[in-house]
Amino acid sequence: MPYVNIKIAGPEPTKEQKDQVFKEVTETLVRVLGKKKEAVMIFIETHDAGNIGVGGESVEDKRKGMK
Amino acid sequence: MPYVNIKIAGPEPTKEQKDQVFKEVTETLVRVLGKKKEAVMIFIETHDAGNIGVGGESVEDKRKGMK
Amino acid sequence: MPYVNIKIAGPEPTKEQKDQVFKEVTETLVRVLGKKKEAVMIFIETHDAGNIGVGGESVEDKRKGMK
Amino acid sequence: MPYVNIKIAGPEPTKEQKDQVFKEVTETLVRVLGKKKEAVMIFIETHDAGNIGVGGESVEDKRKGMK
Amino acid sequence: MPYVNIKIAGPEPTKEQKDQVFKEVTETLVRVLGKKKEAVMIFIETHDAGNIGVGGESVEDKRKGMK
Amino acid sequence: MPYVNIKIAGPEPTKEQKDQVFKEVTETLVRVLGKKKEAVMIFIETHDAGNIGVGGESVEDKRKGMK
Repeated sequence: MPYVNIKIAGPEPTKEQKDQVFKEVTETLVRVLGKKKEAVMIFIETHDAGNIGVGGESVEDKRKGMK
Repeated sequence: MPYVNIKIAGPEPTKEQKDQVFKEVTETLVRVLGKKKEAVMIFIETHDAGNIGVGGESVEDKRKGMK
Repeated sequence: MPYVNIKIAGPEPTKEQKDQVFKEVTETLVRVLGKKKEAVMIFIETHDAGNIGVGGESVEDKRKGMK
Repeated sequence: MPYVNIKIAGPEPTKEQKDQVFKEVTETLVRVLGKKKEAVMIFIETHDAGNIGVGGESVEDKRKGMK
Repeated sequence: MPYVNIKIAGPEPTKEQKDQVFKEVTETLVRVLGKKKEAVMIFIETHDAGNIGVGGESVEDKRKGMK
Repeated sequence: MPYVNIKIAGPEPTKEQKDQVFKEVTETLVRVLGKKKEAVMIFIETHDAGNIGVGGESVEDKRKGMK
């Protein structure tokens, strides 16, 4: 029953990166919290940087400002 | 004010299936919890099977493993 | 892997009501969307009416206004 | 650390609208709750009207019913 | 149908602060995105600072580090 | 901007366990996805086992059934 929701800004991670996140985060919850491996459910959501605001400004604009 | 968020792995349900889920889940919350029908808000989100991990492995790979 | 999050305003439902919601919502997702029963995970969260706003006003105040 | 998730029905807002929401909601949390501006994280998610149910019916159908 | 979820670290805001947030965030979504006022649903959740991690460390410890 | 929400069934983890989860999950997102450490925000929510349903039954009852 651990449910994990991970929301990130694009670009979309590769399949290998997502699979590695599933593996490691699950392993952490099993080892540290004693949860059952097969019960751990993780959703990775990649959002457009223009749809995420940090400090009142979109991540898209913040990234442009850093160029 | 009941807010319901339903996250599932693809494939995307049909319009008929989604409408049936809206109807039945709303009916359950009204009858069982006594909530007002017009107040029930439900979001159905369909996620790519590669973006969901269960037991440390993506649902995409688990489905391949079952073929 | 269906994940369902149900957020409602208090009062807290009884155990029987919660169990009935788990049963019915799971049954709907299995029958209508063809999901596996054992894969359906549902969280019911009861929030204080003062922590929920609808139409710019707390549910707590809206309920008082109706008395 | 304020995390804000805003889910709306399409059509997708413009960049200017999203940026204005980031600006105003952040400003509200800073002024009213005393939170630090740079700590405020906001996700805006636009969902298809057919994926949202209100009162047991999809927003898509409700909008058609109003034409 | 705008659904807004606001998660913050304690201490719990006062009723007046929460009501002001409901009012202002709703007003922003109505004016900026053209949403219907009565359709806007907002949940404010206050979490213990020990249950929130930023930069790999709990907000609780980060706050202690600043004293 | 990575936002992570971890929902688990009680009992409540200890402070050391939560801090270890913050540390490890943040480290994974930094190393595997290349995210900035200070941008990673994690909420751990512990829910009563009676408020979580898996396979149509509460986790509370499932745990009793295993005794």
